[in-house]
Parts: sequence; structure tokens; C-alpha cells
Amino acid sequence: MIIQLENNVTSDLIQSVEEELKTLKYKTTHVKTQYGNYLIGTGKKQFDIRSIGHLNGIKDIHVVSDDYKLVSRKWKVSPTIIDLGDDVKIGGGHFSLMAGPCSIEGEENIMDTINFLKANNIKIMRGGVYKPRSSPYSFRGLGIDGLKLWHKLARENGIKIISEVMQVSQIEQMHDYVDIFQVGARNTQNYNLLDELGRVDKPVLIKRGISGTIDELLYSAEYVFSGGNERLLLCERGIRTYEKASRNTFDINAIPILKEKSHLPVIADPSHGIGIRDHVGPVAMASTVAGADGVIFETHCRPEEAFSDGQQTLDYPEATKLIDKLRMLNEVSAN
Amino acid sequence: MIIQLENNVTSDLIQSVEEELKTLKYKTTHVKTQYGNYLIGTGKKQFDIRSIGHLNGIKDIHVVSDDYKLVSRKWKVSPTIIDLGDDVKIGGGHFSLMAGPCSIEGEENIMDTINFLKANNIKIMRGGVYKPRSSPYSFRGLGIDGLKLWHKLARENGIKIISEVMQVSQIEQMHDYVDIFQVGARNTQNYNLLDELGRVDKPVLIKRGISGTIDELLYSAEYVFSGGNERLLLCERGIRTYEKASRNTFDINAIPILKEKSHLPVIADPSHGIGIRDHVGPVAMASTVAGADGVIFETHCRPEEAFSDGQQTLDYPEATKLIDKLRMLNEVSAN
Amino acid sequence: MIIQLENNVTSDLIQSVEEELKTLKYKTTHVKTQYGNYLIGTGKKQFDIRSIGHLNGIKDIHVVSDDYKLVSRKWKVSPTIIDLGDDVKIGGGHFSLMAGPCSIEGEENIMDTINFLKANNIKIMRGGVYKPRSSPYSFRGLGIDGLKLWHKLARENGIKIISEVMQVSQIEQMHDYVDIFQVGARNTQNYNLLDELGRVDKPVLIKRGISGTIDELLYSAEYVFSGGNERLLLCERGIRTYEKASRNTFDINAIPILKEKSHLPVIADPSHGIGIRDHVGPVAMASTVAGADGVIFETHCRPEEAFSDGQQTLDYPEATKLIDKLRMLNEVSAN
Amino acid sequence: MIIQLENNVTSDLIQSVEEELKTLKYKTTHVKTQYGNYLIGTGKKQFDIRSIGHLNGIKDIHVVSDDYKLVSRKWKVSPTIIDLGDDVKIGGGHFSLMAGPCSIEGEENIMDTINFLKANNIKIMRGGVYKPRSSPYSFRGLGIDGLKLWHKLARENGIKIISEVMQVSQIEQMHDYVDIFQVGARNTQNYNLLDELGRVDKPVLIKRGISGTIDELLYSAEYVFSGGNERLLLCERGIRTYEKASRNTFDINAIPILKEKSHLPVIADPSHGIGIRDHVGPVAMASTVAGADGVIFETHCRPEEAFSDGQQTLDYPEATKLIDKLRMLNEVSAN
Repeated sequence: MIIQLENNVTSDLIQSVEEELKTLKYKTTHVKTQYGNYLIGTGKKQFDIRSIGHLNGIKDIHVVSDDYKLVSRKWKVSPTIIDLGDDVKIGGGHFSLMAGPCSIEGEENIMDTINFLKANNIKIMRGGVYKPRSSPYSFRGLGIDGLKLWHKLARENGIKIISEVMQVSQIEQMHDYVDIFQVGARNTQNYNLLDELGRVDKPVLIKRGISGTIDELLYSAEYVFSGGNERLLLCERGIRTYEKASRNTFDINAIPILKEKSHLPVIADPSHGIGIRDHVGPVAMASTVAGADGVIFETHCRPEEAFSDGQQTLDYPEATKLIDKLRMLNEVSAN
Repeated sequence: MIIQLENNVTSDLIQSVEEELKTLKYKTTHVKTQYGNYLIGTGKKQFDIRSIGHLNGIKDIHVVSDDYKLVSRKWKVSPTIIDLGDDVKIGGGHFSLMAGPCSIEGEENIMDTINFLKANNIKIMRGGVYKPRSSPYSFRGLGIDGLKLWHKLARENGIKIISEVMQVSQIEQMHDYVDIFQVGARNTQNYNLLDELGRVDKPVLIKRGISGTIDELLYSAEYVFSGGNERLLLCERGIRTYEKASRNTFDINAIPILKEKSHLPVIADPSHGIGIRDHVGPVAMASTVAGADGVIFETHCRPEEAFSDGQQTLDYPEATKLIDKLRMLNEVSAN
Repeated sequence: MIIQLENNVTSDLIQSVEEELKTLKYKTTHVKTQYGNYLIGTGKKQFDIRSIGHLNGIKDIHVVSDDYKLVSRKWKVSPTIIDLGDDVKIGGGHFSLMAGPCSIEGEENIMDTINFLKANNIKIMRGGVYKPRSSPYSFRGLGIDGLKLWHKLARENGIKIISEVMQVSQIEQMHDYVDIFQVGARNTQNYNLLDELGRVDKPVLIKRGISGTIDELLYSAEYVFSGGNERLLLCERGIRTYEKASRNTFDINAIPILKEKSHLPVIADPSHGIGIRDHVGPVAMASTVAGADGVIFETHCRPEEAFSDGQQTLDYPEATKLIDKLRMLNEVSAN
Repeated sequence: MIIQLENNVTSDLIQSVEEELKTLKYKTTHVKTQYGNYLIGTGKKQFDIRSIGHLNGIKDIHVVSDDYKLVSRKWKVSPTIIDLGDDVKIGGGHFSLMAGPCSIEGEENIMDTINFLKANNIKIMRGGVYKPRSSPYSFRGLGIDGLKLWHKLARENGIKIISEVMQVSQIEQMHDYVDIFQVGARNTQNYNLLDELGRVDKPVLIKRGISGTIDELLYSAEYVFSGGNERLLLCERGIRTYEKASRNTFDINAIPILKEKSHLPVIADPSHGIGIRDHVGPVAMASTVAGADGVIFETHCRPEEAFSDGQQTLDYPEATKLIDKLRMLNEVSAN
């Protein structure tokens, strides 16, 4: 159950509603976000919402049977729009592309990418400065200094930044230099990280776990939302299956299912979803017509020389062609 | 290695080439299909194709490193087109829709469907008369009499038939009443059935196994082709994964990968691929822009009353809307 | 619902019970096996078994909520024992080993194996004469002549035979030469084959599908049982997962779960279950203490030269050591 | 390549070896643990170990082709033994049991468990004070105060503690109150957590990821080892598959495979591996004979009232019976 409260409601009222619910054996969690003020009640008894609905300070009450509440479309029917400022918006009809290298490599690489993005009217650049690596002996990214340089160059060129945060201590470091925090597939159930991101006033894109279910992705989003941050994006990036002809199995089904279950924008990551450069395009196109609110993909001026994972990275001519197709398909399938 | 022979080549010549290859420890299989005459050689030694290439009766020689040979695009670059007659073609730019109920239910149900197909300019009707059922106590289909009635009505209305064959003994029974034999997901590795379908002069659509790999699907097609029947279609219908939010996980990656690996047409089955009526459309649309040569889906005038699996079946207004979208998307993404 | 009838019950009585059930909207299937006479009723209504329980000819009535009925332990609590004659029994405390080559290779190979089995007091020899192969160009087994030779030599030496049947037409051919028909993992849902095996008076071992669920294995057994043959064995042989360090993932959980759900004997196949020669032993031992009624494994006097799949085949010294361990573990864990 | 250095080697010598390797395009990592001093070299060139092997300060050099190095059995053949003091050892023939509740619930619950453990001669108690929960509204554990109380009572009774650490900031908090840090299945690839645990002088048990591969588990262990901590245990706890008859699919194959690949002790977690109380025993027994160095399982005096996951928790009589069986099986199968 979600009880939407007036933003200026007194703590006395909150307490009285909580006590009312406690008599019904409901557990309550008070959630205050950038925009809203909610009491989440979880319990088993049937509950007559009229018994508290008349109280001053209560705007609305929704019964949500899913275990996730605040991210569910059962209480918030209208799509959430993430506004990054400068007229850059994602969701609710604002189809959004995000592109860039797997890892940020240095000034030249950043400027190459920014110039490519500007030429294609893309406003959001992706890139890693902290890289999760299965081997401890691999390159782990340029770190915070790389991010600061990137931020300076991006701001000069009107480009927004999305980058992965891997641990709690990086949140504060990165905070002023990113526009969207990305939670990677290996950290989707790193609950402490999610808790902390709930206290941040920056949007968070959460990738589905390597073998995470659709429901687990929604629970992870619920963590951040109930921590106080409702500016969230969900990202399908392929799941682990027995099939080895592709790096992951992109779960196209997840796109319409997530759109039905949640009001949050859904972004497709075809680069990791198939992991084969020649086929990133078809998967991106498929995601677009299946209802994704945006696509994030890897591009590099010379993929063969990219620091990491060049196998799934498009060069600029390939990327340009794809961008045009995606925008066209988004337009024709929207009608 | 595939050695393409002239169609009128003598058995003497075939024998002499086979002996030549035997000296190189190559195993040979002679394949004669509706259209071609091939010697398949499998062996490990490097082989100088010039040593036999000059012989009379040899048209061409291709080295194919895949374990599947005849279905590979490495020797046949141009796409295979399946021609059902009456100007009904699949593949090679001929985008094809196939629709109908899960099970054929009787005359009224057949005519309802035929009328719907004609109104939407669809030429191929799907439907089961033999149904694979996990429980022995379930309805198993109308059988051969149902098929004969269906065939009569379809012929009167210019409609082609695709229907599942479950065992060798049904092949002869069904032969004169279907235009495409369908091999179901539970029979993809029923090698005796595949062997026998190699002897038939009717096209065969092979569904990917319930947890079959892409390579296994190609091997299964190789069985039929090497048995003498090269009129084959491949069908992606979703795979079994841990995810339970959908009935299967439709493997959108398989569409571009199969198109790259094989010259055979690739058909998408979104009905089984997601198994949720409301989301069949997005998956069908995704498949179309990802490069599928056609889509097969379930439709029924009253899905709630369908004999089986109404949960993934579109009603006619839904199907009509989808058909229009698929044709439009096929057109715009083909360019 | 399972209604056990007297074996000599009249068809009039069966008909009257069926009609009684029809009034309750129950569908009925009459099943007559080697041992029993059953009416299976499937329906949704609550049913008071006293309303028909008093009728002459009815021995007992069990309500079984599972979708599989006759193979469920909910109606038959005592374990089923498969008696092959000559004091060779499987199940119900009779721990049974079956061993032999992947494929039967010829007289020498047969006699090597028989001598090995006799030296180790094993009564059942495994081996394929029809081999399911993913590539049509691979060796497909010696066929019926190989089986006849094997049968002659086995009978002379008091050895029983288990061998895979791949299609309906092979059943009659093989019938007189096998003691147990094996249904392979690719045919677990080949329902026509299962139907026909229901008409046979020889035991049938059914392997779990390559990615079959435990319930699907039980449904497949229900097919054969409801066809009239209740002499069945279930076999866990590993499932397909994302893990590639082993050929399959042996599902040790399936052993106690199958034993709980069904009264049929459960056999473990560690050779395919892990597919790594050095580790077949530990998996066989694990299965034994987890409750398996027997173990089937591959052995060959020179695994490196075996016709197929030598990688998972034990040589005779390895096999002898394992046999001793399995018998010892079965004994100590039975108490 | 692993270069074992004398413990008292000078930094000059390390530097000179690193430079030597740099000329061969080898990347080097210097690792200093509780016991050893290593240079890890990763590179592609063939390398003649004699070219540096003569240098003072070098004890030994091993070429390790796996991507994980220090955890591989290819350089360290003898099994690692984890010594917790007070004669409590794990691995290398020391079969070890660890038991306790899912979550620590309070003083009474702790003392109940300790008394049970003492009665059964078990030296290590498991229990969570920080619980990873998919829903943010669930109980998340007693936290550090619970751990302090537990530690006090355990120390008074000669019991060692294993408990899960979920984030970097908890390491210091928990350090003085645990004997083994546990990394949970959701954190197996939380590389920052692994890095930090490399700096700790307490043993670490790493659970396999929810759908982690065997290799990924070894890489995760490599992270901690190369961070400086070689007191590691690996834990198989079941993987995520399509099968829903059990909570996870316990990968029995992983036990012998991990034992072959690594010198680290391998612990089985049957409670999570099957998730069904009645079947925890068979899986624990199977793991023991398959070669596990120990078993960790959940037990509670009244499982129905346990704070969490009582479904897989044994009561004390069940646990006592199992403990006896495991010790007996370990003994008989060790020979």
C-alpha cells in the first residue's frame, strides 16, 4: 500500500497514520524523495482505505499487490520522465540515445567521442572510469581524474555524462561530475550501494543482473526509490543462458514487460546484450520498436584499438547509420 | 567440403571422386535434392581443391569449416527462397506472415480463420491437428480427418497450410494435405523424423529446440538437407531460461545470427516466444526489424474459447493492427 | 483421481463408473497394464469418493492432485521393483549397476565388456546400437544386426541388455533382443514413441530431457504408464545450464525429489551428467548416497579408442574401483 | 607466471625482476600475503624461466596458463589448510561442519545454537547479522550489536564465528568479532569488497555467484589472494537454472572440479543448494562423498519460527542425525 502524503505534512500526522496501520499489523516505511512524501505499508490484512483516507495531509492511497511498490505502474500510471536539464529528457515519449567508449581512455578519445556525438545530435555520453573486471590483473579504468577531465570537456560541449559507480565510497567522489550514475550488472543486488544511491539527488540507471530476473531488477529500483531517489532508469543488457553463439541473450521480452510493470523509463543495451559488433544494430532496432525509451551503445573511432571489449563496439560510420535508423523506427512505431 | 556436381553426372564419376577423397581419409556423403547434386566430404587434412576441380561433372567446390555444410552461408551466399506456388514465396526479400489458431477446431473455426486471412491478404494458415502435450490426458488434436477438411477449405480459398508433423508414420498421411511440414520444438532432435523429411518434396519449417542452441538448429536442418530436401525454413520460438515472467525467452539475437550463418529463411514465432497476449506484438515487431523473413503467430476469433493456449492468442482486431505494423516495419527497415 | 479396479472387472461396470464421473464433468481414461486396471479421472470438482467407492469391482480410490497420477507416490507409497528375471531386480532396496560402452562396436568389444561385468558381478550391460547424433555425417551405430549379436552373447553369459530406442519402428525390431528399452534425452518428449512403449511388455528407462524439468520427466513416464506399461525407471543425466566447465550440470537435487514424488526407481547417469572421466566417480558416489536406486555408466577397455565419447568413459581398473566404492556407500548409507 | 620470492627479499631485487619482465612485455603485480611474497607476471610471450631463475631471492617459478594464478593447483599442489586456532582446521583432510540459524535472532537463539553445536562437537557457528534482502522492506539483521553479543557468547564457549560481510565499511566493524568473513552469492563479483578483504588477516569464505561460473569463483578468490590474503575457502551453494522444483540447482559437479583446479578448501552449502528441508540431508551427504572439505548448513531449534527462510532449516534432531551420517561418510569415502 502506498499512501501519498502532502509534502508539507507534519510528523505528528505521519506518526498517527503509522500507529493506525500498526494496529492492523502493517509494517510502515516513510519515504521522502525529491518530489514526493510516501508511507509504504506492507501487511497481509485486507484494508479499507476509507478508514484513514479522510485524514488531513493524505493525498491519495493505492493498494499495490506487487512486492515492489513505488516503482510499480499500478499506482503511477503516467510514465516517469527523467529531466537532466538543458532540455535533455528521457522517457514519456523522449527517445534517448547514449553512446561512447567502453572505457574512457584520455583527452583525445573523449574529444573524438564528443565531436561524434555533437555531429549526431546525441546529448549523453557513456564511458567507464571504474571498470569491473573478473581478473584482478586487468586495466581497471582511469579513475576519478579521468572523470574530472571528461566532465570539464563535456560541460564545455553541452554533453551529459553517464558512468558506472562501483562502490559507496565512489558516490561522493563522482557526484559532481556525472549526470547519471550507472549501477552495473554485477552490482544490481549490492544493496548497500543501492541504499546510498537513494540519498543522492542524481538519476540512477540500474542494469539488470547478469542472471537477474525482471522482478529482481524492479526490487533493486525499489531500494533506491524507497531510499529517497525516484529519478531512476531500468536497463536490459542481456542475461546469461546456455547459448554461446552470443555473449549474452538479450531478453527482448523484458522491454514490453518492464514497460507494463513499471512507470520508469527502460533503456536497451544491445552492445552487451549480443556482444557481436555486426549484430548490435539489429538488436538496437528491435529494442526500439519493442518500446524502449532509449538505447545505450558502445562506439569508438577505432574499435580495434579500444582499451576494452572492442568486439562489440561500433565505429563511427556504423554508429551514424544506426542512429538514423533508430530515430526513424522510433518515429514510425510510436504512431 | 561441398562438391557441387552437374545434375546429370554419371555414377562412375561420383565414384571416382569419392575414391579420390577416400585416399585423403575424407568420408563422403552423396546428396541429391530437388535442385542439386552434392558430394559432402568431411575430413581433417588440408585439401587442394585443384586436385579434383578440373574433372568433368564438377560445377564448384567450397571449403566449409562449420560442422554443418549445406545449410551454411559460407558456400551459398544468396538467400534461399521457398516457393509454395501461386506466387506465394518466403525469403530473399519476400516477407511472409503465417497465422491461425493453436489447434484446428472444426469447420467454423477454419472458415473464420480463412476469412480473416483473406481480409488481411495472408496466404499461409497455421494450425495443429496433432498436438504434443506434456500430459497424456489432454486433447491431442483432430488428427488426419481434421487436416483433410482444412485442406479442402483452404484450397477452395487459395490458402496454403503449415502444420506440425510429430512422427514418421504421419508424414505419408499428411503429405498431400500440407504445404509446409512443421517440426516442433520437442522434435528438433528427433533424427529419424528429420531423416524421413529429407525424402519428402515439401518444404519443412524446423523450430529451434526448447533449449536448443543455434548450432543444433542448423545441424537439424543439415539432416533434412543431406537427406535430399533443401526447401527448409528455420524458426526461432524462444528458449528455456530461469526467467519466469514470460513463458519462454525469445532469443532476438538468434535472428541476425541465423541470417549470417545460413542462407535459409528465418521465421519468428512471437506467440510461443513470449507467451503473453499483450506482448506478442512488440516481439513480432522486434523480430521484423531484426531481419526475420516472416512471422508466424496465433490468432482466433475468440481467444478465451480457443481449444488451447488462448493466453498467447490475438483476437482479430489485435491481429489486424499488428499485421499492418509488421508490413510497414518490414518496408522501412528493408531500406 | 485414480480408481483401482479389480482385474476381472466387467466392461459394464467400467462404463457405469465412467458415466457417474461424466456427470461430475470428469474426463476418464481407462488404463490396463501388466498388473493393474485403473480408471484415471481428471476434473476440477471436489468429489466425494464414497459416492462410488461402494460399487463392486472397485478396489481403491486415491485423490492425486498432481497432474501426473499413476507415477505419483501419492497413491502408491511402496517403491516399484523392476524384475528382469533370473533374480535381477532394480528398486525397492535392490541397488543396481549398469555399465558398458557408449556404442556397441563388435564382437570383441562385446565380449570384453561381458567379461568385465561378470568379473564384477554386474548383471546389466548398456550400449547403443542406434545413436542420436547432432551431425548427419557421424557414425550412427551398428543397428539391429549389432543388437542381435550382442543379445546372443549376453544370453550365453547371463547378462541383461539395456539399449536406446529412437523411433517407433525400432520397437518391434528390438523387442526380443533387449531387457530394458532406453528413451534418450532427446526423445523424452517424443510422445508417439512414449505411447507405443506403453503397449510393450518390457521395462522402459526414461532419461530426463536435455533441459527437461523434473515434472516433465514424470509426465513422460505417465504417458508410458497410462499406455499400459508400468515397468518404468527414471534417469537423471544432467541438465543444460550456462556452466561450461562440465558437459552438463548433474542435478543431484533431482534424486531425492524424484524419490519423494514417485514410486518408480531412479537411476543416475554420471557419465553424461558431468562428462569428465576423472570426475565420473565422485558424481556416481554422490548419487548413490543421495538415494539413487542404481547407476548407469560408460566403461571401455581402451577409452581412447572408443567409437564415441571416450572422454567420459572409464577404463576397467577405474570402473572396478568405482563399483566397489558404490556398493560400499550404498550399504552404509542405506542404514 | 608466479615467481615465489624469499620473504626477506629487497625491493631492489623485486624491481630488477620486474624490469626484466617488462622487456618481455609482461605486466607484473607484486603480492605480499601473510605467508608469501610473489610476483605475478601476465603476458603472452614464451618465457624461459632460466633467464631469471638464478637470481638471488627467487625461490621458485611456476608457469600457470589459467587466468587465475595464485589460487590454481597448477603451482601449489598441496591442499591449503585454514587454521582458525584452538585446533580448529579446515581442508587438507580436516573435514569441517559449520551450522547455525539463517539470521542471528538474539541471546536465547545464540545460546540454543551454541549448546547444540557443543553437544555435537561442531566448532564453527554460522549466522547472519547483515542480511541481503531483495525487498527493501524486509528485516535486515541485528547488525553489529548482535555480532558483539554473539562473539562474547561464542568465545565463552569455544565456538568460532562465520558471518557475511556485505560492504567495505562493515569490514573494520566486524573484524574483531568474526573468525571467517563470508562473501555472499550476490557479492561474489563486488570487486571493491574483494580488494579490501585482501588486506585483512582473517580467512574469507567466498560463495559462488547466483549464476556464477566455476571460473568466476576462482577469479574472485584470485582478487582476495592477490590483495594479500591467502586464507580462502570456496563455497558451492547452488546455481540458478530453469528448474523450479528446487530453490537452486546444487552443482555437485563443481565439487570435484574445484578440488582439481584449486588448492583451496571447498565447502558445500546444501541449505541454499536445494532449499527444501527434507532434502538438505541427501545433498549434504552427496557433497561429502564427492570430496567437499566441509558442509555449512542451517539449523534452528524451531525452524517454523526462524526469522527467515525456515523452509530449508533443519531442527536439532534432524541435524544431529545428519552430522553423524556426514562424519561417517567422510571417513569411509576418504579411504
